[in-house]
Amino acid sequence: MKHSNDEFSLISRFFSDIGRVGEPFSDETLVALGIGDDCAILRSSSGYDTCLSIDTLVSGVHFPENIAPDKLGYRCLAVSLSDLAAMGAHPTVFTLAITLPDNNIEWLEGFSQGLSSIARQYGIRLIGGDTTRGPLTISIQVHGLVPSGMAIKRSGARPEDLICVTGSLGDAGAALDYLHSDGSSVLLNDNVQHFLKRYYYPQPRITTGIALRGLASAAIDISDGLLADYNHIAECSGVGGLFYENDIPLSSALRAEKNDEALSLALRAGDDYELCFCISEHNFKCLRGDTLFDGVHIIGRVLETQGMIMVGDDGVEESLLPKGYQHF
Amino acid sequence: MKHSNDEFSLISRFFSDIGRVGEPFSDETLVALGIGDDCAILRSSSGYDTCLSIDTLVSGVHFPENIAPDKLGYRCLAVSLSDLAAMGAHPTVFTLAITLPDNNIEWLEGFSQGLSSIARQYGIRLIGGDTTRGPLTISIQVHGLVPSGMAIKRSGARPEDLICVTGSLGDAGAALDYLHSDGSSVLLNDNVQHFLKRYYYPQPRITTGIALRGLASAAIDISDGLLADYNHIAECSGVGGLFYENDIPLSSALRAEKNDEALSLALRAGDDYELCFCISEHNFKCLRGDTLFDGVHIIGRVLETQGMIMVGDDGVEESLLPKGYQHF
Repeated sequence: MKHSNDEFSLISRFFSDIGRVGEPFSDETLVALGIGDDCAILRSSSGYDTCLSIDTLVSGVHFPENIAPDKLGYRCLAVSLSDLAAMGAHPTVFTLAITLPDNNIEWLEGFSQGLSSIARQYGIRLIGGDTTRGPLTISIQVHGLVPSGMAIKRSGARPEDLICVTGSLGDAGAALDYLHSDGSSVLLNDNVQHFLKRYYYPQPRITTGIALRGLASAAIDISDGLLADYNHIAECSGVGGLFYENDIPLSSALRAEKNDEALSLALRAGDDYELCFCISEHNFKCLRGDTLFDGVHIIGRVLETQGMIMVGDDGVEESLLPKGYQHF
Repeated sequence: MKHSNDEFSLISRFFSDIGRVGEPFSDETLVALGIGDDCAILRSSSGYDTCLSIDTLVSGVHFPENIAPDKLGYRCLAVSLSDLAAMGAHPTVFTLAITLPDNNIEWLEGFSQGLSSIARQYGIRLIGGDTTRGPLTISIQVHGLVPSGMAIKRSGARPEDLICVTGSLGDAGAALDYLHSDGSSVLLNDNVQHFLKRYYYPQPRITTGIALRGLASAAIDISDGLLADYNHIAECSGVGGLFYENDIPLSSALRAEKNDEALSLALRAGDDYELCFCISEHNFKCLRGDTLFDGVHIIGRVLETQGMIMVGDDGVEESLLPKGYQHF
């Protein structure tokens, strides 16, 4: 479940209050969390909650029309797994609804290879699906398990918490300029190859998410851009954020290839599927010895007052707008 | 999960063996049934299994492009609920992935009203979703609960079982000729109004499905046509079927308006969303007193030998091909 602000307002206006669980079950026993986070959470009495999230990718909107089918198969599951990572959930099963313009066996073979490769990598099983005819569209619903009550929500950030991100930001956004050249005879340098790899093969931070259970106060995955996604944490938690310009992690490829735009891509481009999380200083210290957190960067502080601010090199503060990828 | 034969072979060729549930969980503990039935089944230790099914409806393929949004909202959830009915599952929650060409507030209002109305009727709650931009496409995943091990599968039919259906067949198929006139100034007679109502407002047989738990040996919902759908039961159970031509239930509207095609529509048209189930004579007698089963018709017998046969008025037997709605 990814939202730009506009998508978010569509959802809350029309879809946030549809139906209730009827007898003999009840809303309260079954649903721990409904619409508005990376995943919904279903309770069970087995000691685990189920986190689930549905995501749709549309040809020409969420991926280039000429994308290689194995890359698409990989990417569409990666994007959904990233929602589980943001909740600290362990992936278990998924369903696939795929709409295809035709019955192209070669394409399907490539697609299922890419899908299968990431499914094996993350230990998640395809248990159901639907294939229909129409414009190429893929919906995937992923399910994951988390010990009862331990899912990391967007709503728990507290003033003074550190704001952290995994990996580096902006690389996948930088890839957008080169997607049309991919697979053509144009020679792409190593930096561009790096961007394309980040775009096509996002690495959902499942293990980091699991390690953050009970420690992070809030988390989200960065699909629409750091500012847009942190803004969801801020709104759900009733807080603001201060970011340190110098500490936003940029890859050497991004600095080399896109120096002027690097910061803007890191703040506003989507598709990185890194995690952004909030954590108290005390809990952060618990993590520091863990090699899993070698790639984690502190990029700011949660503020009590709403709004987002960036502190630059020179100590000058600048207000930030939560503008990221807009779905409409 | 609906399959025509072609869709079925696509799924089994490319998607039936993707991934396994990784440590610390396991396939065997979590997944009771994967791809190939109306729903997948997930085990839990709470005394209930979860049945789940994802279905996609594409504009111009599964519904007319000019469909009123409230009718679409109703129909797309009804179609998915029908898969739960076929398993004997009690609906609990669903997710919605909707791809929209634009942000049309009036349309969204109508759609959410139709969706909300059926969600209230069946006591199911929308817990998550995704809205994206693109050609109008709707994917819904429904979840339902059934006491552990009690879900009705396609695979349990036994020779000598009765073949039964709920309601009457062919009405929704008859509606297809009139969809273009709907909402126009053309006067439609009561029979046609009846067909349109059957098409736009299918009534998933949830209560009947629940009452069949432990009694029916196999069940499926009729989305692609009686023969195509019964054929799934036959293939999964390794049996055949004998149908009594005179006992196929046809509405008076269908007889009046489409006399020549009535039987063919009942056998081969889709969209009725009635249940087809197999049941021993002994178990059928247990149901007979229940007013819920007033609308249930015995239409044939499960055969040990594969293939489907129809016995006509005159006692002449005719071989039947399992041809129904083809998704590709």
